[in-house]
Amino acid sequence: MNLPEKVEIIEVGPRDGLQNEAEFIATGHKIKLINALNKTGIKRMEAASFVHPAYVPQMKDAAEVINGIERAADIQYMALIPNEKGFERARANGVKALSLVVSASNSFNVKNVKMGREESIQQFESVITKAKVEGIFIRYNIATAFWCPLEGKVDLKVSLEIAKRIDDLGVNEIVFCDTIGRANPKQVYELFEEVQELQLKAMITAHFHDTYGLALANINAALQAGVSRFDTSIGGLGGCPFAPGAAGNVATEDVVFMLDEMGIGTGINLKALLSCVDIVKPLTKRELTGHYHKILKYQHT
Amino acid sequence: MNLPEKVEIIEVGPRDGLQNEAEFIATGHKIKLINALNKTGIKRMEAASFVHPAYVPQMKDAAEVINGIERAADIQYMALIPNEKGFERARANGVKALSLVVSASNSFNVKNVKMGREESIQQFESVITKAKVEGIFIRYNIATAFWCPLEGKVDLKVSLEIAKRIDDLGVNEIVFCDTIGRANPKQVYELFEEVQELQLKAMITAHFHDTYGLALANINAALQAGVSRFDTSIGGLGGCPFAPGAAGNVATEDVVFMLDEMGIGTGINLKALLSCVDIVKPLTKRELTGHYHKILKYQHT
Repeated sequence: MNLPEKVEIIEVGPRDGLQNEAEFIATGHKIKLINALNKTGIKRMEAASFVHPAYVPQMKDAAEVINGIERAADIQYMALIPNEKGFERARANGVKALSLVVSASNSFNVKNVKMGREESIQQFESVITKAKVEGIFIRYNIATAFWCPLEGKVDLKVSLEIAKRIDDLGVNEIVFCDTIGRANPKQVYELFEEVQELQLKAMITAHFHDTYGLALANINAALQAGVSRFDTSIGGLGGCPFAPGAAGNVATEDVVFMLDEMGIGTGINLKALLSCVDIVKPLTKRELTGHYHKILKYQHT
Repeated sequence: MNLPEKVEIIEVGPRDGLQNEAEFIATGHKIKLINALNKTGIKRMEAASFVHPAYVPQMKDAAEVINGIERAADIQYMALIPNEKGFERARANGVKALSLVVSASNSFNVKNVKMGREESIQQFESVITKAKVEGIFIRYNIATAFWCPLEGKVDLKVSLEIAKRIDDLGVNEIVFCDTIGRANPKQVYELFEEVQELQLKAMITAHFHDTYGLALANINAALQAGVSRFDTSIGGLGGCPFAPGAAGNVATEDVVFMLDEMGIGTGINLKALLSCVDIVKPLTKRELTGHYHKILKYQHT
């Protein structure tokens, strides 16, 4: 088994997780969650999203969140932006790390950000140029990199081609997202095997949802294809507002538990994560999809 | 990735699944479930358990179930027995395939069947001798082959040694069971890699529970170590009466869905499995842990 010694976990709960909650979550709760995540050992997180407030009302307080959290010097706080306007808002709020998103599937891109895939890619080119001048870190997500809820299975070549184009722009990180959680371990392994052959300059990250219960299996497949960086969401928060039925992101504590068991280091404290789950639980009416926090009371020796 | 072309699924829902239900399920419902499973493409199943009725009251109607089901000529119906007495009852009811169980952990064996591990192994020796004379198929389960709720992690060598002893008795199948669902993919891969080196004569099967959400990841790890036979339970029914908090067996439909997606044949019809889930749902008050039947209404193209 090809397994790394260490894995980096990127927490996306405060953004990808909370944005799926229909009822507005008070800014104070969001800030409390991020401040608690600060104490877990997590070193990178998506903290907010500068999207149009009418479009994703849950994220309308992005500026207040970004400015209200305790900032640890060794933690990177990223903000997602869907377009140039989002970039201006993020920059105005002193964001030092951006998370951009384009969809491998054109129809999903239209549904997600009201413009075609090419238009997204092109407008981000100027964002990237400006951001690089200012030394801003750029994370670039490829949504529906495996499956699209509208177009079905995504041709591996399409995701690879987008990755290559993005990499040529000099971004820092490329994230391959299984937005609806339908990828399978074979598909994951095959995609990342090809990704490795591209020898991209950017860091490579995988992002899985647990819709079919396959997220941990997919992480294992990605590990074996040489990926050692994963997005996760505290408690398993999340889903996708434009992909009905998509389950939450894979739970941070489930991934850390699994990696602990496998002897793979994450630098993250499981107990500290469980305090964060306790903060998250009352914020959502949905049952959290994570497994670890439910079994804990029966914890075996 | 080392993947087989075909995988054999053994349905254990009517036994390992239903035995965990506190309220007695009417014999007619059990028979209805097995008759529906007959039509899915499943070729082997654990249909009942000849345990002491005072001990597992849910299985007190084992004889009625075994005699009441429609028997397809090409389907194997197995009955679990905990001891010699169970063997006599199973034999009296014309059972042609037995499922024996011993625990790798001695304390769990005592809790499970009220006798030490060595006593279990020894009394089964005479059962096996008698059964072989009559051409009865013998499946031998090693419970807590990875983790024990009482003793913690089980030394791989203990499970391997038991497997070797059992194999020498000439059984047909050996099942390595992660009874509490705490095994991790690395542990699974390492155990089965060693099992392969033993070159056992018996068929090898893996049995996973989904307590920590790791069952599908563990199946993938086992596949890569050359295992191509898995126990599953319709809907994700199950648990373990003596391992509090242990979640259900991995859901049959989740495993078949995953293998379908990976291009691995099972000969099982997913739609037919969903009819079985519909039969199972009203039989339990617990929420079924399977993922596939919940997402179906949003089924992507």
